[in-house]
Amino acid sequence: MSTEPTALTAAFEAALREFFESRRPTVDSIGGDFAVAVDHLEQFVLRGGKRIRPAFAWTGWLGAGGDPAGPDSPIVLRVCAALELIQACALIHDDIIDSSHTRRGRPTVHIAFADRHRGRAWSGDSTDFGDAVAILLGDLALSWADDMVRESALSQAATARLAPVWSAMRTEVLGGQFLDLHSEVTGDETVEAALQIDRYKTAAYTVERPLHIGAALADADLALIDAYRRFGADIGIAFQLRDDLLGVFGDPSVTGKPSGDDLREGKRTALFAVALQRADRDSPATASLLRSSIGTELDDEQVETIRAELHRLGAVDDIEARISALTERAIDTLFTSSATPVAKDLLRDMAVSATSRTS
Amino acid sequence: MSTEPTALTAAFEAALREFFESRRPTVDSIGGDFAVAVDHLEQFVLRGGKRIRPAFAWTGWLGAGGDPAGPDSPIVLRVCAALELIQACALIHDDIIDSSHTRRGRPTVHIAFADRHRGRAWSGDSTDFGDAVAILLGDLALSWADDMVRESALSQAATARLAPVWSAMRTEVLGGQFLDLHSEVTGDETVEAALQIDRYKTAAYTVERPLHIGAALADADLALIDAYRRFGADIGIAFQLRDDLLGVFGDPSVTGKPSGDDLREGKRTALFAVALQRADRDSPATASLLRSSIGTELDDEQVETIRAELHRLGAVDDIEARISALTERAIDTLFTSSATPVAKDLLRDMAVSATSRTS
Repeated sequence: MSTEPTALTAAFEAALREFFESRRPTVDSIGGDFAVAVDHLEQFVLRGGKRIRPAFAWTGWLGAGGDPAGPDSPIVLRVCAALELIQACALIHDDIIDSSHTRRGRPTVHIAFADRHRGRAWSGDSTDFGDAVAILLGDLALSWADDMVRESALSQAATARLAPVWSAMRTEVLGGQFLDLHSEVTGDETVEAALQIDRYKTAAYTVERPLHIGAALADADLALIDAYRRFGADIGIAFQLRDDLLGVFGDPSVTGKPSGDDLREGKRTALFAVALQRADRDSPATASLLRSSIGTELDDEQVETIRAELHRLGAVDDIEARISALTERAIDTLFTSSATPVAKDLLRDMAVSATSRTS
Repeated sequence: MSTEPTALTAAFEAALREFFESRRPTVDSIGGDFAVAVDHLEQFVLRGGKRIRPAFAWTGWLGAGGDPAGPDSPIVLRVCAALELIQACALIHDDIIDSSHTRRGRPTVHIAFADRHRGRAWSGDSTDFGDAVAILLGDLALSWADDMVRESALSQAATARLAPVWSAMRTEVLGGQFLDLHSEVTGDETVEAALQIDRYKTAAYTVERPLHIGAALADADLALIDAYRRFGADIGIAFQLRDDLLGVFGDPSVTGKPSGDDLREGKRTALFAVALQRADRDSPATASLLRSSIGTELDDEQVETIRAELHRLGAVDDIEARISALTERAIDTLFTSSATPVAKDLLRDMAVSATSRTS
């Protein structure tokens, strides 16, 4: 298997396509319109995404001595690709929770099925139907992630090494999502709370545990696992901090999401927490403006005003500085580890691209 | 392990309690109010339910030669108990989908968290918060079902035998739930559609696959698996037909659900489909009444009127006759199988109680 990013992405997608194909007999036997719903899920999974989690898992495996030309390679590839099914569940359910209308530039799953309901003039409430289908399809993706791992042909020893990491990752991401939700409604304003959410909702799930999974599959020693996890936690948080900036300053034509969405949704990001902390100290009028704006239906001009304030308060610079510091420390950790030289270069490039991306 | 029902239920609950206990370090490390949410899930799982799925799986294992005094017994018990975690996800997500307010005589999970939100005057919409937490807790239960099986200490051979059955069961129940939802909005009126839903949403998930799981764990031969599956499909459908009757005629103080709930929710049950088929033939005015009533906010008097019509049309007798015929055929299948005599008696009793229950 090539380690070239495009080829790797294509290989993950081929594994996912093959897995969906393997479900077809069961899906067809259930009948009705279930196959239509499953096709929608397949398109959702295959249509896009950066495949960042499988890529970290795969590169973690490489860096711990995994041989891309060896017999385990297609097996490891399937396990890595299965992370995209967990991600499909997370996105589909998150989009219901956040009432998001677009994802990757297209209608979210719950909106697509609400539209289908409306278009066919079915009975009942279109929104409820869309939400219900999206709940079930998310559940299906989550179940299938496990099936895909179980059917990957991993050895018993590798399965045993993978199990606790896989379990921890799923609990952590759900826990992180819960904390996120909770902080939104309680209006927790501390930077610490925002970083705790980032730690579990994003860092553990996006970088740390995928790398740990790769290491576990390759039977890495504890020192390398520890280095991967520290690298992953730092890069994962930096990744989320970049996401926070994009959620307010990102170009909608690049991110595929309306500009300023995080502000309207009331997301309690570290960016916002830092801004509030600084405003409370230096600029009480701005603090009131921020508190009264978050989670409301802001128009473009209001979003622009808040953007200017975030700059003026130094919150943007603060977050950029944190991203730089975390990335630097992570790369230090990585380069003093026992990971293979090729993987070190790959992971450094992935770290830089994950934390300096524009979408 | 005793085969006495109360002792068995207590053993499943002890296994579940032990599993929840094992998650505590991870949950506590995530912090915030996540532990509160997980405690709620644990209470939900432990508080009640008939443990019918674990009981069928366990009895299927016994009937295929599993030794309740042998070393595998506690392992099999854990795998059987894990079915209750899948069931927790199914119930929690179903209650969101159906907008149900009560479950087992208490507020449903989404209602409980909406109430918590309201009671603390948190920001945002209480209903949305309740739904969001319930989505995440359902996902957690679904993930943990897999964890519980993986950590049950099953042998590699048993794990391999279990895998395809476990996978099929989860896809089938989600497929069945989708068909159910779909038939509600499209107003599919055929008896066949209702029975197809019953086949996957209930029969496969509640009896057929649990027995199949027990058989797979005990390494049963194909003839016994086939007999179990036919028995399970018949009893499972009969179980659902009984549920349909209880959904319209059940005593709220016994079922824990408001009387006539299925009618208000617009459930396209076989009972309702049979009634419509008969009304179309014999009683067009009743057919119009049924069509205009289903899925609307009926008061108690209207529910009473529909009940009387379901009797008058012979739909209740028709469903009772189907329950009897299915149960009889299932018991014939069972008693000509190679299941152990003790298990035959147990399964017959369980079949009778599942299809003649009052709650």
